[in-house]
Amino acid sequence: MAGTDRRRAKLSGGPAIILVEPQLGENIGTAARAMFNCGLTDLRLVKPRDGWPNKKAIAAASGADAVLEKARLYDSVEEAISALRRVYATTARDRYMVKRILTPRFAVGEIKTYLAAGESSGVLFGPERTGLLNEHIALSEAVISVPMNPAFSSLNLAQSVLILGYEWFNAGNEAAGELTATGHSKPATKQQLIRFFEHLEEELDNSGFMRNAEKRPSMVRNLRNLFQRAQCTEQELRTLHGVVTSFAGPRKRKKKAEDS
Amino acid sequence: MAGTDRRRAKLSGGPAIILVEPQLGENIGTAARAMFNCGLTDLRLVKPRDGWPNKKAIAAASGADAVLEKARLYDSVEEAISALRRVYATTARDRYMVKRILTPRFAVGEIKTYLAAGESSGVLFGPERTGLLNEHIALSEAVISVPMNPAFSSLNLAQSVLILGYEWFNAGNEAAGELTATGHSKPATKQQLIRFFEHLEEELDNSGFMRNAEKRPSMVRNLRNLFQRAQCTEQELRTLHGVVTSFAGPRKRKKKAEDS
Repeated sequence: MAGTDRRRAKLSGGPAIILVEPQLGENIGTAARAMFNCGLTDLRLVKPRDGWPNKKAIAAASGADAVLEKARLYDSVEEAISALRRVYATTARDRYMVKRILTPRFAVGEIKTYLAAGESSGVLFGPERTGLLNEHIALSEAVISVPMNPAFSSLNLAQSVLILGYEWFNAGNEAAGELTATGHSKPATKQQLIRFFEHLEEELDNSGFMRNAEKRPSMVRNLRNLFQRAQCTEQELRTLHGVVTSFAGPRKRKKKAEDS
Repeated sequence: MAGTDRRRAKLSGGPAIILVEPQLGENIGTAARAMFNCGLTDLRLVKPRDGWPNKKAIAAASGADAVLEKARLYDSVEEAISALRRVYATTARDRYMVKRILTPRFAVGEIKTYLAAGESSGVLFGPERTGLLNEHIALSEAVISVPMNPAFSSLNLAQSVLILGYEWFNAGNEAAGELTATGHSKPATKQQLIRFFEHLEEELDNSGFMRNAEKRPSMVRNLRNLFQRAQCTEQELRTLHGVVTSFAGPRKRKKKAEDS
C-alpha cells in the first residue's frame, strides 16, 4: 500500500530493536524498513554475519536509510543492552523456562508504561535460522511471542519486527478505529438532511407511492433510516434533491408556498 | 522466529483475501504465507499479471502451498466478490471519497461480527505499484488503512496481508496477553513459598543479618516481596532452600524440633 507523505514529521522514540547475529543483509534492510514504517529508529546490530555496513541491507531498506545510518554495532548482546532498563526476547518456540510470555500488544503496553517513567527498553530478535539462545532469553524480563496459526507460525525477521512496531505505533489508538472521510465536502447538517427527507416524502405522496396511510409511517421511517445510514455530505444531498426533482419535476411547495 | 508445530490442527475460515492484478509471483507467494500464518485460507486472484499458476509464487510461499493450491482465479473484481456480503478495500492514500476508513483491528471486529451472523466478507488488495482503482473502492463497504508512520507508511503486499491476518487471528484474545510459562515444574503453592520465607528468615536471624529489631519487619517484607515477585516454581524453591542451606549449614529447627 503506497501513501507516504514525506512532508509530515518523522516519529521517533520507542524501544531499541536489537538484531542478534542477523545472517542476511536483506533481512537487516527490510527490518529497518519495518521499523521506520512504525516510527522506530533505534537499531542495534550484534555481530551481523556479513559485516557492517552491508550493501544488500541498504538496497533492501528502500528509503529507510536513516535507520541504517544510525544503526549501532556491538560485539555482544550484553554490550548492546547495557544501558537499557528492560529487555524483551522474541521467540516462537517454548524454551521450558520460567518466564513471562507476552503478546506483542501486552509487551508494548508495558514498554510504553516504563517509558513514561523514564525507563528505556529494548527488544531482542535472534538469528534467522536458530532464533535467540537461551542465555539471551535469560537476560530478558520476558518473552514476546506473536500469536499465530500453531500449524504454521514461522515469521521472517522483518515480519516479526513489523508486528512489534505496528503494535508500538498503534498502542493507545483504540478510539480512532473508525472515521468517515468525506472527501472535499462536509457532512450534512441534520437540518439539511431533514429538508431532503421532506422533499422526498412530499414527492412520494404526490406520486401515489405512499397512498397506503397505514403503511406510510413505517415507509417514511425506513427511507429516513436508509439515507441517515448513508451519512450524506452537503454535496450529496444537493445531488439527491436533483435526483428527486428529475423524477418528479420542480417542487410545487403546495402548502408552504401558501403559508409564506 | 521459528516454531511451527505441524502436529496441531490448521485453522480455517476468515475473510477472503482478494489480490487484484498482483504483479509479482513472489508477492503472491509471500502473501499466501502470511495468510497461512494467520489461519486464513481463502485466496482469490484477479488477473495476476504473469498468469497462473506461477512458479515464483510457489517458491516464495515456502510451505503455505495449501493456500496457493486452493487459490481461485477470476477475470474481474466483480466476479471475485459476487457471492460475498461485505467487501473491504485496503488503501493508504486518501481517495477523497465519502467512505468509512477503518483500522485493521476495527475492520476485523466488524468482519467477525458479520461472520457470526452468517455474512461472508472479503478484503481487496490492489496491484503493488498503484493500489486499488477508485472504482473498486466504490464496490466496498469501507476502506481499511493501516496506521503507520505518516513520513514512511508504505507497506508491501505481504506485509499488508500479514497485518490484517494478525488482527484476524488475535481478535478477541485480549485477555490472554500475558501468562507465565513455568517449564516442566509447577508454580509453587503459597505454603511452599512461606516455608521458604521462614527458612530464609530463620537463617538470617541466626547469621545476625537481621539483628536490628526496628528494621527487621521492613527487611522481611522486602525480601518476601522480592521472592513473591519472582513467581517461583516448586523446583526453584527446592533450589533456593539448597542455596540457604549451603550458606548456613543444615537447618537446626530450634523450636520446631523441640515442639514435635
